[in-house]
Amino acid sequence: MDTKGNSTKPSELPLASGRTRYDTMFAARTHYKTGSFAPNMGFVGGCPDLAALSMQRYMHLINRVADTSTARALQYGPTEGIDSLISCIGAVMAEEKAHIDPSEVLVTSGGQQVIDLVCKSFINPGDIIITEAPTYPGALHTFGMYQAKVVQVEIDDDGILIDQLEDTLGRLDTDGSIPKFIYTIPNFQNPSGVTMSLKRRRRLIEIARDRGLLVLEDNPFGLLRYRGEPLPTLYSIDGSDSLTDTASDHVIYLGTFSKAFLPGLRIGWTVAPPPVLEKLILGKQGTDLCTSPMAQLLLAEYLSECDWRADIERLKQMYGHRRDAMAAALHKYFGEHARWHEPDGGFFTWVTVENCLDACDLATHHLELEILPGSLAYIDGLRGSFSMRLNFAGAAPQIIERDICRLAQLLRPGSLHSQSTKQLAVA
Amino acid sequence: MDTKGNSTKPSELPLASGRTRYDTMFAARTHYKTGSFAPNMGFVGGCPDLAALSMQRYMHLINRVADTSTARALQYGPTEGIDSLISCIGAVMAEEKAHIDPSEVLVTSGGQQVIDLVCKSFINPGDIIITEAPTYPGALHTFGMYQAKVVQVEIDDDGILIDQLEDTLGRLDTDGSIPKFIYTIPNFQNPSGVTMSLKRRRRLIEIARDRGLLVLEDNPFGLLRYRGEPLPTLYSIDGSDSLTDTASDHVIYLGTFSKAFLPGLRIGWTVAPPPVLEKLILGKQGTDLCTSPMAQLLLAEYLSECDWRADIERLKQMYGHRRDAMAAALHKYFGEHARWHEPDGGFFTWVTVENCLDACDLATHHLELEILPGSLAYIDGLRGSFSMRLNFAGAAPQIIERDICRLAQLLRPGSLHSQSTKQLAVA
Repeated sequence: MDTKGNSTKPSELPLASGRTRYDTMFAARTHYKTGSFAPNMGFVGGCPDLAALSMQRYMHLINRVADTSTARALQYGPTEGIDSLISCIGAVMAEEKAHIDPSEVLVTSGGQQVIDLVCKSFINPGDIIITEAPTYPGALHTFGMYQAKVVQVEIDDDGILIDQLEDTLGRLDTDGSIPKFIYTIPNFQNPSGVTMSLKRRRRLIEIARDRGLLVLEDNPFGLLRYRGEPLPTLYSIDGSDSLTDTASDHVIYLGTFSKAFLPGLRIGWTVAPPPVLEKLILGKQGTDLCTSPMAQLLLAEYLSECDWRADIERLKQMYGHRRDAMAAALHKYFGEHARWHEPDGGFFTWVTVENCLDACDLATHHLELEILPGSLAYIDGLRGSFSMRLNFAGAAPQIIERDICRLAQLLRPGSLHSQSTKQLAVA
Repeated sequence: MDTKGNSTKPSELPLASGRTRYDTMFAARTHYKTGSFAPNMGFVGGCPDLAALSMQRYMHLINRVADTSTARALQYGPTEGIDSLISCIGAVMAEEKAHIDPSEVLVTSGGQQVIDLVCKSFINPGDIIITEAPTYPGALHTFGMYQAKVVQVEIDDDGILIDQLEDTLGRLDTDGSIPKFIYTIPNFQNPSGVTMSLKRRRRLIEIARDRGLLVLEDNPFGLLRYRGEPLPTLYSIDGSDSLTDTASDHVIYLGTFSKAFLPGLRIGWTVAPPPVLEKLILGKQGTDLCTSPMAQLLLAEYLSECDWRADIERLKQMYGHRRDAMAAALHKYFGEHARWHEPDGGFFTWVTVENCLDACDLATHHLELEILPGSLAYIDGLRGSFSMRLNFAGAAPQIIERDICRLAQLLRPGSLHSQSTKQLAVA
């Protein structure tokens, strides 16, 4: 649309020449090195498949909210969140054996907002945050916006390497640097799919206590375990070993309804020690006042009126089959030519293979399967170029089989065309 | 709930003693001087009255979204916002004769998020923001969180004093300081109710152009005018005088559906020059990824299927009567003992009267009428203690009459009890 009017009055100064004019005005935090983080990449691959959910039933629920609470749904609500939803959050967390005090909960506009509010409350420019390597690109993006210095610690199949973490903390100590918090995704990590072992969880909490460090525990996938026994949350471990009646002192817990439940409602939550919660609430008031009461009431209606545990079971069945399909297809089409971790839950398989970075570009145009380039999961944007995050949860088994086959063709043409054998041997 | 478990393992370090432990860890931005800003005060008094809206019809709309778009409503959406809603935003802004390019719109989680994202994109600690005095307390809160230095410029019945603004800019110039933006609410300002005259609007845009300054135009109430002729938005004035085909170069426009429409959906929007919009989008991705598609689809359904202009007319009738009731009651019970501005639209009347600050505390316990202490609208927390913001939009005329009478009793007991005449004379 052209908004040029009929006035002929000229501007007093020459008009902006492209983006140059604004560039001198943007805050320092917007100039952080993004690595290869691209707009909209933050949640590519994080989409659950809603096909398993009965839309008919959600329609019914939406109608119920309309019948009983339209006026409440359409007015402002308290910043902390609506009580009925907070009660349900207690029940959802109890499913993972984490017991909370409802007064320590803040309902947020998705889990991402928790990451933002924790940074807002704790991070001065240059402050250190420790993450796993690789880690969730969307968290790196937020950390960058707060000009945090991110230090990444390697993981193996049991999660973060505690010895390397201690070395890192010791090295930072000698520089006089104390990290503001350790950001970790203990269950079926994004992007690696790795789960932190119980032993490492305990050691991590010990370290947090010894050093008076905070841990931001991001647990979007905890309820989506397809094999093996559930492990206690870091929040529970810190709370249960406490000498006082209080809940966890060192852990800020991040939960979300966007993965095992409904992403479109944009509802997450945090459980935090009261002095921290107070700052998070002040931060939220400066950001969006409150999370949509409409969305909160709908979710509370669902959680209190429906058998959500049965829904989770159904999702676990479905995603578990897809996990198996992904593993089978990787074995079949890549075999020894790639490395990957077979996750016990969540959405993701992390695959390392030659020439992967170039392939990601190609793949996004040729495949239905959601693929995230591995380099986005590292702060330097250099590592991870041989890795990619595959989302098995969002695609049916036959799509997974077909697309892994295509991916193998893209990445390993030699395995299918004899003329490329030499090239393959070199790679 | 007690989360103490059965483990007897002690913490290695003494536990936190109250909040002291965390206090050393919080970011500098959380220590900003809040004046008397109190949690939840940011939107006290900002609530519209939804009684005039047909809940039956919203139920129907919610049902329609359920019927046609449940799956889409429950999945992630694009960060920028859903196209169908953005089209409707174009129509809503056209109602105020502001014409936009849909590609320059970002849908946000309420208008407050626009303020947050603009700060995130532009404000380094110590950067200067110019506001009106008084101004919206929720904006001061956000500016404080970004450690901005707020400079307030007085208003009169025609809005911001342009001469004083120029003096201020000149004084800042000699210090080598350039404000990052001017934050203004031109229509029925929050909290004063004052509307900026057309002449001042034009001069403000001239100044912005002369000096290459940005203006953040916050326009929550533009559609709610009860008397007089509508004035063009700053966005339109800048755009229509432009020599190029582009829209406004100097104005970031902030709109919201929380006042004239539905606060509980938590949907606002911004229109900004493309290089600015790009930063706002990156900021939003770090904050909450996207605004609830469920809420966006519901609003789009309402705006495209219902006669929202007729609804606005009905609201204007209702709020206009309340405005009149407030003016009549102030005349009747305060007369010459208070000063106030009679607004042409919006929600608020700003009243200045002796002993007002003490009364606000009392009043909130004795009155239904929403009252905001005036000091919250000033950055120093010292001024405004004789003023208060009254929300006439949220209460029926008989409540307004009754509560203004009570307020007069609280503030001017001498006028009703002869034994207090002396006390009144002293005040």
